[in-house]
Amino acid sequence: MQHTTPAATLGVVGGGQLGRMMGEAAGPLGVEIVVSDPTPDCPAAPLVRDQIVGDFDDYEAIRDLADRADVLTFEIELADPDEMERVSEETGTPVHPDPDTLRTIQDKLVQNRALADAGIPVPEFRQVDDEADLKAAGEELGWPLMLKAREGGYDGRGNLPVDSPEDAADALDAVGGSALAEELVDFERELAVMGVKGADEVRAYPVTETVHEAEILRETVCPARADSAVRSRAREVAFEVLDILEGRGVYGIELFETREAQSASDGASGDEPRAAEGEILVNEIAPRPHNSGHWTIEGATTSQFEQHVRAVLGWPLGDASRRAPSVTTNILDDVEEPEPAELSGTDTVLETPGASLHWYGKREVRPLRKMGHITLIDENATDAVELLGEARTLRDALTFE
Amino acid sequence: MQHTTPAATLGVVGGGQLGRMMGEAAGPLGVEIVVSDPTPDCPAAPLVRDQIVGDFDDYEAIRDLADRADVLTFEIELADPDEMERVSEETGTPVHPDPDTLRTIQDKLVQNRALADAGIPVPEFRQVDDEADLKAAGEELGWPLMLKAREGGYDGRGNLPVDSPEDAADALDAVGGSALAEELVDFERELAVMGVKGADEVRAYPVTETVHEAEILRETVCPARADSAVRSRAREVAFEVLDILEGRGVYGIELFETREAQSASDGASGDEPRAAEGEILVNEIAPRPHNSGHWTIEGATTSQFEQHVRAVLGWPLGDASRRAPSVTTNILDDVEEPEPAELSGTDTVLETPGASLHWYGKREVRPLRKMGHITLIDENATDAVELLGEARTLRDALTFE
Repeated sequence: MQHTTPAATLGVVGGGQLGRMMGEAAGPLGVEIVVSDPTPDCPAAPLVRDQIVGDFDDYEAIRDLADRADVLTFEIELADPDEMERVSEETGTPVHPDPDTLRTIQDKLVQNRALADAGIPVPEFRQVDDEADLKAAGEELGWPLMLKAREGGYDGRGNLPVDSPEDAADALDAVGGSALAEELVDFERELAVMGVKGADEVRAYPVTETVHEAEILRETVCPARADSAVRSRAREVAFEVLDILEGRGVYGIELFETREAQSASDGASGDEPRAAEGEILVNEIAPRPHNSGHWTIEGATTSQFEQHVRAVLGWPLGDASRRAPSVTTNILDDVEEPEPAELSGTDTVLETPGASLHWYGKREVRPLRKMGHITLIDENATDAVELLGEARTLRDALTFE
Repeated sequence: MQHTTPAATLGVVGGGQLGRMMGEAAGPLGVEIVVSDPTPDCPAAPLVRDQIVGDFDDYEAIRDLADRADVLTFEIELADPDEMERVSEETGTPVHPDPDTLRTIQDKLVQNRALADAGIPVPEFRQVDDEADLKAAGEELGWPLMLKAREGGYDGRGNLPVDSPEDAADALDAVGGSALAEELVDFERELAVMGVKGADEVRAYPVTETVHEAEILRETVCPARADSAVRSRAREVAFEVLDILEGRGVYGIELFETREAQSASDGASGDEPRAAEGEILVNEIAPRPHNSGHWTIEGATTSQFEQHVRAVLGWPLGDASRRAPSVTTNILDDVEEPEPAELSGTDTVLETPGASLHWYGKREVRPLRKMGHITLIDENATDAVELLGEARTLRDALTFE
């Protein structure tokens, strides 16, 4: 491999905070990034060589990107796999991860089937095309269950718990169109493993605990509080998942660690097999760097963003070890209406040793929109949980006004 | 302090590797950077919001920069203090560090006088305007001595050891114009302290050892091999230096640790007072991030580049602690003629845990031009010296061809 100037260039469909953090990571490697994004002056714009303004399925924009790039990748699932594939065939610019992987992941039903077919543990699920399907699924999986739109959901949008058959019609209206029903997993905690597939090697970061609120990831804790057998099983499952994904790049693998299966004895569906205590189930996969891996910027030897750049270019992967116990907490707000982004209280974050501020440069704060995050690491901490209280204090002192 | 979008913007005169690494560091903080540099598509260009093409003393370019920026700074001593001051007065945009500090540092004679006047230890020096001055200086300071051009030298250019009175005329021709003569310091090692002045606080990073070859910095080792009394004295002197510098920002303070003063008994100038063993003398000051502080990107809690951004904006400073023993080695070559930059052998650097590649994106390799650097850190190393051999092996495997 050679380092030359003009540099290796990565074309990225999407220019949100993930594209921005890719730009920050690409600089030291001497790699240039061009992004395409529909929002002029997107968050990545000030940190990359150039932004092409265009929708995630805009052929012209993707074609421009490919013409300028050595490899094409994406930082958002809304990227159009058909257009990327077409442009790749026309230009000879490879796309990573593989558009087929993106197609599989874009449809949660197809995703679950692919995992189940490979013998990878997932929650019980059923295809739901109408009210009758949903009611039947409830009979089999038990109420309440989780209804998920097959496509387009993110940050919990498109996911809806349904309590009873009476709510079925409204729930289907809310998620809109074809969906899948999943057993509501009684989990002890949620975990995530960031994995990476290179040209001829596969690696995974240490298991991270993720804390969600209203279906949106709020905090991460690494190492996870799960015991070592559970962590080891989580990594094992993550490697099984990586094995069925096509194409180089970083993948976020979200998992459930199940709790003692009380519902088997008290639920209406008492006869159904339920996950046993401490079992690992795959919840969702993201074919890109993921919020659950933001801690790797300061907390790991190689960040997930540098790792993604290396992987998609086919370069040697970096060391995925943890440097220190690490927690992150997202900066978001429950404003009712969009308003200009003005965050106060960041001095305390800047003054705290081991705390790092990441501000994504979004112009407007919107309801529960991720505006930035704080990472707190401490080499001398015995585990990460002791950092969580301090990180929450830092976050709670921030105000949008 | 508030974080808003549009973000705080820093205008930087100069867009070389230091500006590039400032761009990388500014992203997470939500700060935007605009640089001015005479070379179109300068190294910083792909990592910053914008480049204005203009010379370092181009009024229009500096004025454009100031119009777009909240604070003006510089990453090269060739920045023109008069134009920056004029623009600052016209626009109200503050400049940090203070243009007066830059004026002092630009003239090595004025710099040495300012230090000596403040009681800060420097090598013995004399003003040299002609051959007679130089010969007289040799009489007093002893031969050989170090002849330095007062202005414009960097990476050793403009510095010339002079062996005897017979070489005086040629040496003066070589450095060109007015100069100063310094006693040739018999040093045990060279040290550097990166210091930072904030709005109302001053900090310094741990003492770093610097290894020069042909007057060009090649390697850094942190912690320095000097004993703790010497390191402590080095920091003390660095804080004295910071005390006389005006304006916020990061400063590189280059030091000599003197060796046992043999020359006092065997030199022609045996009667002259010479520095005692282990004494700290100030060699030079850089009013900006410096090569001797590149290790802080991976090796310290806050990098010198993030620290500079925080400081010049008047934000709280970051923790300047060392995270791990760290060494760096520069990537440069002794090519005879400029040629397109193509570096081979980087795979090994990418594959080595704890090693980080920094490639500056320069289009041409030129004789002894700094093209990038490698940092190697290891939390488990007992000191940094054991890392030096490995870092040299990584560097020596790189070839320009």
